[in-house]
Amino acid sequence: MSKQDVVIQPIGGCCTPIMDAALDSAGAAEGAAVFKALSDPIRLRLMSIIASAGGEMCVCDITPQFDVSGPTISHHLKVLRESGLVDCERRGTWVYYWPLPERLTWLSTLLSVPTPAAV
Amino acid sequence: MSKQDVVIQPIGGCCTPIMDAALDSAGAAEGAAVFKALSDPIRLRLMSIIASAGGEMCVCDITPQFDVSGPTISHHLKVLRESGLVDCERRGTWVYYWPLPERLTWLSTLLSVPTPAAV
Repeated sequence: MSKQDVVIQPIGGCCTPIMDAALDSAGAAEGAAVFKALSDPIRLRLMSIIASAGGEMCVCDITPQFDVSGPTISHHLKVLRESGLVDCERRGTWVYYWPLPERLTWLSTLLSVPTPAAV
Repeated sequence: MSKQDVVIQPIGGCCTPIMDAALDSAGAAEGAAVFKALSDPIRLRLMSIIASAGGEMCVCDITPQFDVSGPTISHHLKVLRESGLVDCERRGTWVYYWPLPERLTWLSTLLSVPTPAAV
């Protein structure tokens, strides 16, 4: 399967931590595609700004926080959206973004380290 | 700061979830560098195989699980090691790998979604 073929699935339930079970090739391709969305410093900071906003955020309030052009920010936001990490809606002139916690929870669970059970 | 300048720091304590606070540029660069290590399907599957082994794992037991060459696996293992996700030790002919749970916990916490406090 090429990277281009990876279709990021809708989240259904939660996943198994990699400390508990190895991923198969399909699971690894899906997970890697989402981590790729977070592997760029601008995108990860963008994601954190939207995630910590406590609600939706106008692109007009996001772009001024970066030293790159509006089209560059739009490109990065599109990658985050296609990875299921954020969603958006256009209202009038502006587009508003909000985080999708299900995807974050999915990744967080994948990387979680089970705490030893109490004896 | 270019990607080449990013120095992945030793883990000291835990980090703040991005749902709670936006990352600054340095934090985003550090996090993105580790997510980049997990953004390749082979590396993510490799990481999951080592993480789920329940201890250390000989490279001689890892390589046969992939359809790529030994040197390719060695390259990917080096990236995981340089990202602080695994460590290794050579003993005789073989190199043995084990996961570093602190780094996984750090990433997992970064992406975690706080559950609403009980009223």
